[in-house]
Amino acid sequence: MAVGTLVEVNYHPIEGVQLGTTQAGIKTPGRKDLVVIQAKEGSSMAGVFTANAFCAAPVHLCRHHLQEDSPLALVINTGNANAGTGAAGDADALTSCAELAQVLSLRSSQVLPFSTGVIGEKLPIEKIVAGLPHAVSELNANGWQDAAWGILTTDTRTKGASVQIEHLGRVISLTGISKGSGMIRPNMATMLAFVATDAQCSPTLTQDLLNQAVNKSFNRITVDGDMSTNDSCILIATGASELCLDEDSELVAKFSQALTELMQQLAQAIVRDGEGATKFISVEVEGGANTEECLQAAYAIAHSPLIKTAMFASDPNWGRILAAVGYAGVPNLDVNILTIHLGNVLLVEQGGCAKSYTEAAGQMVMDQEEITIKVDLKRGDAKEIVWTTDLSYDYVKINADYRS
Amino acid sequence: MAVGTLVEVNYHPIEGVQLGTTQAGIKTPGRKDLVVIQAKEGSSMAGVFTANAFCAAPVHLCRHHLQEDSPLALVINTGNANAGTGAAGDADALTSCAELAQVLSLRSSQVLPFSTGVIGEKLPIEKIVAGLPHAVSELNANGWQDAAWGILTTDTRTKGASVQIEHLGRVISLTGISKGSGMIRPNMATMLAFVATDAQCSPTLTQDLLNQAVNKSFNRITVDGDMSTNDSCILIATGASELCLDEDSELVAKFSQALTELMQQLAQAIVRDGEGATKFISVEVEGGANTEECLQAAYAIAHSPLIKTAMFASDPNWGRILAAVGYAGVPNLDVNILTIHLGNVLLVEQGGCAKSYTEAAGQMVMDQEEITIKVDLKRGDAKEIVWTTDLSYDYVKINADYRS
Repeated sequence: MAVGTLVEVNYHPIEGVQLGTTQAGIKTPGRKDLVVIQAKEGSSMAGVFTANAFCAAPVHLCRHHLQEDSPLALVINTGNANAGTGAAGDADALTSCAELAQVLSLRSSQVLPFSTGVIGEKLPIEKIVAGLPHAVSELNANGWQDAAWGILTTDTRTKGASVQIEHLGRVISLTGISKGSGMIRPNMATMLAFVATDAQCSPTLTQDLLNQAVNKSFNRITVDGDMSTNDSCILIATGASELCLDEDSELVAKFSQALTELMQQLAQAIVRDGEGATKFISVEVEGGANTEECLQAAYAIAHSPLIKTAMFASDPNWGRILAAVGYAGVPNLDVNILTIHLGNVLLVEQGGCAKSYTEAAGQMVMDQEEITIKVDLKRGDAKEIVWTTDLSYDYVKINADYRS
Repeated sequence: MAVGTLVEVNYHPIEGVQLGTTQAGIKTPGRKDLVVIQAKEGSSMAGVFTANAFCAAPVHLCRHHLQEDSPLALVINTGNANAGTGAAGDADALTSCAELAQVLSLRSSQVLPFSTGVIGEKLPIEKIVAGLPHAVSELNANGWQDAAWGILTTDTRTKGASVQIEHLGRVISLTGISKGSGMIRPNMATMLAFVATDAQCSPTLTQDLLNQAVNKSFNRITVDGDMSTNDSCILIATGASELCLDEDSELVAKFSQALTELMQQLAQAIVRDGEGATKFISVEVEGGANTEECLQAAYAIAHSPLIKTAMFASDPNWGRILAAVGYAGVPNLDVNILTIHLGNVLLVEQGGCAKSYTEAAGQMVMDQEEITIKVDLKRGDAKEIVWTTDLSYDYVKINADYRS
């Protein structure tokens, strides 16, 4: 079950990027579970990883390889997160890099490893090694949809997005896939995203653009407030289009916006497929003195179990929303001047329920699958949006029953 | 449903304190819903209140009266929180003080008002005014148990504690009651606690001792991480025992410990009666470099929906606990040196599942109603404990269905 209908993605191939997917039998026989992505010589690669101090072996190695070398290939397995696996886990992650490097005639440090799945079980490295030659033989520029399947764990659907922008009569393509069904479930360690473009872009600028886009997309979603041990997001810029970002600030702005929107689509797809989700909720906080207080208020709402259960019940419970804004930690907050809208319906003014508000009007908004909660703090110009889900019986069921 | 069996409390009367409870018909006819507490002339009174910027009318007035005067009476109603009620709510809170003051021949500013119940509905002040004379006529020193009933909302049981300490051959008594069934549910705005002692104590020291005890009790519990609009805790020191704390540091230490333990009992009783609770969970974090990081780790565990659902399922899911410690924000955390115990069973060492751990041993701990999760950060001497519940289907049910 997921919120909203699945839109079929028209994946634009990215010149200089090939993807190969196979069944390595890592956890479930007959399931696509091993993906190789190769980028052409000269591509720039940038990564953003989980801030969790307890991070998985492949995350450590990704950071190291990105610092030491210029990676050109990715190896991704599902079914096992290679997290909490100690020194053996580090060795296994390195072996997967070394083996793929040998097949592709690269250095080990030119390969980045990614694992997602169950925590604390040894990676079946021999199955990965055995599967790599077939994954490599499948490498092709139209492999995005197969790869989107190959990186899923308990997701109920693939997640992809693809756009093109024009500049000076030429075209840049951006294509990406993601996985995750909960901002995090450490036991099925969680979010991965791989985005590629044929724009030409220095490694430093690639990293800057990725950081900015992640900050407005994957860093703005939450299902349960937990943070995974394996979250990783990679941006590859092959340069095949020969449109160079570094020398064209107008193009950078255009590209940055397209990248952010594409990554917001990938991030929102994770929320829509969130564990037990029946609602897709946008929390918009505007009128803040700065970004930080907008995010404080937005996350207080997005993390409140009381609001999330009310959303599940389609209950326009203004007291819970106002109380969450009240404890968000916004300094010297005046609750008497702020307003809260549910969709376009004014819900809260002057520290209480709006005079014009009717239950019927609120109920009409709450009965939708997609709901916007809009808070105007009325003390500045800052604005932030985060996306989240409701909290349903199924969330408890999925997470209580997971290991049994 | 609540965790553990209800222990009958032997309430020691506090000389100089009388309590009167009546049925004012505020929300539910035939239910005790109005309580008056009177302290003798010369008593010291101190209060701690919610940090929520959206706080209720009576909370504002309590703060004001404590600052302006030396209060000697409390008026407490259940069934209506008088929160989100604007200027009319302020006027109603003041009216309840003025009416009780008239009956007791006090100034209005010598009365503190408390309301708990539904948010956003006008306080039926006329019912409170009509009920006050009968509540006052019921004033007596043995009124604690009736008052414990009279302050409940959706709690499933009364919450009380009473102890005596000896000093130089004389006795000091401490007695208190609390209510709350969730750290907070803003719609039934939540936690109240009233504690009295016959110790003699200056107002300043009374406030200091209350602050310290609250910090180790009510500020160490969480059910859902939300914070109420009406939380209030009051300490009354009547001085009737003529044992004076201000001049005896040994007695202060002894008294402070007794007060903290009593308030921990009152606070833990709220957790045990938490919404949908099936487990009482103590999260102990030791070996921290300082208090702050112990609390960061403890609350990351106590607030994690993934851990709370695993506790509900009696699943010793070490990966979720380790991941929560990992994202708690402890600076430069080394997950390879910390240990995590479930009860007395070593669960995590060297960044993964402990070698000696068996599912059978973990399951034995998880099958208990009371569970301790102990984290040793192994980087200092600081230690903190917080108490919480699991996250069950019933939590979602209670909070999703509340208004229907």
